[in-house]
Amino acid sequence: MSVKYTIGLDYGTNSVRALIVNVANGAEVAAAVWTYAHGTQGVILARDPNLARQHPADYLQGAEITIQQTLASAKKNVRGFKSEQVIGIGVDTTGSTPLPVDATGQPLAFQKKFANHPAAMAWLWKDHTGVSEAAEITALAAKIRPQYLAKCGGTYSSEWFWSKILKCLRTAPEVFNAAHSWIELADFVPAALSGTEHPDKFIAGVCAAGHKAMWNAKWGGYPDAEFLAKLNPKLASLRSRLTTRVYSIDKSVGGLTAAWAKKTGLSAGIPIAVGAFDAHLGAVGSGVAPGTLVKIIGTSTCDIAIASNTKKLADVPGLCGIVDGSVLPGNFGLEAGQSAVGDLFNWLVNYIEPGAPISRSASRKTKTSRSEDRLSATHEDLSVAALKLKPGESGLLALDWNNGNRTILVDQRLTGLLIGQTLYTTPAEIYRALIEATAFGALTIINRFEEYGVKISSVVNCGGIAEKSDLTMQIYADVTGRPMKVSRSAQTCALGSAIAASVVAGAHKNYAAAQKAMTGLKPKVYKPNPAAHKTYKEIYVLYKELHDAFGTQTWNGNLFGVMKKLIEIRGQVRK
Amino acid sequence: MSVKYTIGLDYGTNSVRALIVNVANGAEVAAAVWTYAHGTQGVILARDPNLARQHPADYLQGAEITIQQTLASAKKNVRGFKSEQVIGIGVDTTGSTPLPVDATGQPLAFQKKFANHPAAMAWLWKDHTGVSEAAEITALAAKIRPQYLAKCGGTYSSEWFWSKILKCLRTAPEVFNAAHSWIELADFVPAALSGTEHPDKFIAGVCAAGHKAMWNAKWGGYPDAEFLAKLNPKLASLRSRLTTRVYSIDKSVGGLTAAWAKKTGLSAGIPIAVGAFDAHLGAVGSGVAPGTLVKIIGTSTCDIAIASNTKKLADVPGLCGIVDGSVLPGNFGLEAGQSAVGDLFNWLVNYIEPGAPISRSASRKTKTSRSEDRLSATHEDLSVAALKLKPGESGLLALDWNNGNRTILVDQRLTGLLIGQTLYTTPAEIYRALIEATAFGALTIINRFEEYGVKISSVVNCGGIAEKSDLTMQIYADVTGRPMKVSRSAQTCALGSAIAASVVAGAHKNYAAAQKAMTGLKPKVYKPNPAAHKTYKEIYVLYKELHDAFGTQTWNGNLFGVMKKLIEIRGQVRK
Repeated sequence: MSVKYTIGLDYGTNSVRALIVNVANGAEVAAAVWTYAHGTQGVILARDPNLARQHPADYLQGAEITIQQTLASAKKNVRGFKSEQVIGIGVDTTGSTPLPVDATGQPLAFQKKFANHPAAMAWLWKDHTGVSEAAEITALAAKIRPQYLAKCGGTYSSEWFWSKILKCLRTAPEVFNAAHSWIELADFVPAALSGTEHPDKFIAGVCAAGHKAMWNAKWGGYPDAEFLAKLNPKLASLRSRLTTRVYSIDKSVGGLTAAWAKKTGLSAGIPIAVGAFDAHLGAVGSGVAPGTLVKIIGTSTCDIAIASNTKKLADVPGLCGIVDGSVLPGNFGLEAGQSAVGDLFNWLVNYIEPGAPISRSASRKTKTSRSEDRLSATHEDLSVAALKLKPGESGLLALDWNNGNRTILVDQRLTGLLIGQTLYTTPAEIYRALIEATAFGALTIINRFEEYGVKISSVVNCGGIAEKSDLTMQIYADVTGRPMKVSRSAQTCALGSAIAASVVAGAHKNYAAAQKAMTGLKPKVYKPNPAAHKTYKEIYVLYKELHDAFGTQTWNGNLFGVMKKLIEIRGQVRK
Repeated sequence: MSVKYTIGLDYGTNSVRALIVNVANGAEVAAAVWTYAHGTQGVILARDPNLARQHPADYLQGAEITIQQTLASAKKNVRGFKSEQVIGIGVDTTGSTPLPVDATGQPLAFQKKFANHPAAMAWLWKDHTGVSEAAEITALAAKIRPQYLAKCGGTYSSEWFWSKILKCLRTAPEVFNAAHSWIELADFVPAALSGTEHPDKFIAGVCAAGHKAMWNAKWGGYPDAEFLAKLNPKLASLRSRLTTRVYSIDKSVGGLTAAWAKKTGLSAGIPIAVGAFDAHLGAVGSGVAPGTLVKIIGTSTCDIAIASNTKKLADVPGLCGIVDGSVLPGNFGLEAGQSAVGDLFNWLVNYIEPGAPISRSASRKTKTSRSEDRLSATHEDLSVAALKLKPGESGLLALDWNNGNRTILVDQRLTGLLIGQTLYTTPAEIYRALIEATAFGALTIINRFEEYGVKISSVVNCGGIAEKSDLTMQIYADVTGRPMKVSRSAQTCALGSAIAASVVAGAHKNYAAAQKAMTGLKPKVYKPNPAAHKTYKEIYVLYKELHDAFGTQTWNGNLFGVMKKLIEIRGQVRK
């Protein structure tokens, strides 16, 4: 019997990736990446820093291009490879990234009239324009439907489905009124590939619906009409046009259409798995299981854990989602996250753009020698310099909130903070402080899981930063005091999608069997350095103080000691 | 009768300047500047960011070079100019900048043995190595000599005379023990020029002694021996070797020596005025009078006001000095200041060193176009971009404490803070936020003066930043809600020294007459923009909240609203 493969399609913030995986052993035999054509690196921006959109045409063009390329590449890489050996497709995407569609299920943006209308685009996960709408939804739910909030950390986010749709209704009624319905990107792509876009056939994934749209089987699906009507009667009406077919990723939405088969060279009819969010399928591709926290570290970080649905689970405050079946069938999927991680480091490199003097000694140079220096510092330059610094040596401490805080505060109306600067503070010191800030944020999330009975016995990291940045991984180990493991695959999200495809195609009898065959860890484990951990424990106390002082209404106190303690630690470390 | 001139010598942080001024009308006919030869731009640094020293050889070499050059220049600029027309010399310097001297009054650093010993150098004003010594002196005085603290804002600073000497005693006893005495740079230069270095002849200025060494005629001069002995018996012994001749700037320390006359081409015997700090003579050169606040804005800012000594004056908490006769005879001199102003802006440009994308729109460019961009942003680039921003538009707020806080907190163990960063924050926005931070610091000082009965009816600015930065002056006007005037002279410190020389040389009967003849304002006055002032009033509430939360032990509260209010203001302004 010939080797079987599946394709994972992974829709990220800037680009889409296709990955062809051997279902027997997880070998990744070919991959292709395509950056979305619209906007700045695939993201349509505006003067309002809260706005981030994508053009849905990019999603279909991206599927076509990357599937073609990856098949061509597999033919080069694997002797005798044939497209017919691909037995299924899985899809993961960013989210909540909803887009308005017409009565046939086609994106409004495909109509000439709306082709350039920002509100008719896909509202990318990091679009925060619906901040006040999120607050309104939260306030209403707190008053009349507290159960809705209990499953999403107590706060409904501006990043999510209903906030964005309500914002559109209020600020671009011409788009809202023209839309028959709104669907998630994670559901749009499987529907398009299988020709099930029409509302009569359309299927949604429980991952997006449960985590972002307050869908829950226990209360009959999406939020009830009475609740939605109090926000706006048009939302209640929209509810009736949303699908009632909401499934886990062990289901298929249908088979690949003949048109897509022709375009791509794949076999018509191969099953397309129900779509899910990148982080959730990334967790699957990293071997997520009860007790294992998977951190998918990219522009932002998603933290995924699961817990068997046979036992009762407390509602964990600040966790952005607890949804039965959202990651793997039979388990509660628990999602937490940090709104800016790689984006935070990119901000320093791309916006603040340090020139030459990235380390303390280099920065003592006078201006006159500048012409010999390089144009701008890269992540690599800054990492090399930051790696030479000891914990606490810079005296800096940052909050990782440049893009708000998703967990545990669930508050977009937060911003970055940097404290401890002297007249000699260098970009490398700031770079390290930003990495440390995300590590402190990660620790805060782990602590929250454990405080509510979700024991974390193993942390598996994946994503570009986990792959590439020894500095980040070591800081995470030192800050959390836990070994940091790294997933074997560099493309766990796409791998997770390929695993989903392998399950719906029947190559494995269930996810446990598929994960056993197709996932693994890298041999290198980052172990915490006890001395560094000791210093970071001291600094974490200060981080938590700032976190609570700026992030909660219940904190009360004085911050007189914070700068002084940082100076004291700096002095001890430099000795 | 021929035109008479005086020379003002102005010893700054990085360089010394000589200025030749016409005593009849204040015309500045020639100037010369020389950057100190030792260290980085004249400052000897170390890994400890608190350390900043200077080599005293630079002071004498600087006097020789700049006097020669300025005389040569005057001969070119003024037809028939003769060195004999120079009738006196005045000297201003940074401070507290004490240096150890031997039994003949010569700097220890002039001995081969100590030529490279950091502790034998001059301890530059911004050297903060004596932080714990300052705390110790403060604690002791609070306990047994509260009157000492009442005149220096309640806290003795690490920047000052006794903190530095006690630090030397503790950490470099070989230097302390070899020193016969310690003198201020402001007294060293006049003594050297007049050959009065020897302890038998040596004269000190009341400005340095009163503001930095707790000298006060009311309690018999320097702190009493019992007090000093409790810090260390060797300090009590040192007290007996400090001069009892402590005078205001209406006195001369002696005449120019024949050796110096020969070296420079000046006439031997012309009077040298008692030395004072740069800011104090800068205030004189800016026309300081009761009701006028003079802000000398350079790497740091000094604020100088005076109040007639015929009326009782409250002790103003947090003011770094109230000394009878320290600015002008017959008046209390009141000194406040900000530890980093130009240094704060320089930090961003020289250390963080932004490359190309200095404005929001430019920063949207992708990485690929970077090679066309300039190497690094300058103050001018950043100012142009920052000038386009409206108050509150960036959402940023900074504390101006990268070098500690001199007034009103008098606390070196404070650091910088920046809040409000998004993923799109640009260097120009940070640059503007840093300028605004210094403006908020300036407002805090003005408020403190007025709270204690020192009415400020006029603000006159001088120094490089007041001269060059329209952006800074307009922000200061908008933040404080007061017109910002600028001194006519670009060199008010050197001009003030030249005025002192004119008084001791008898060209004017007193300072009022000399100031009337020799000082003036520029025609351009920066008037507050009411809309900008309104926004800044809102932001100042947040600044003051952060200031008090991190800077005082008495504040108690919660900062949950700070980021949100900044976002709200940003949203309003961007509308």
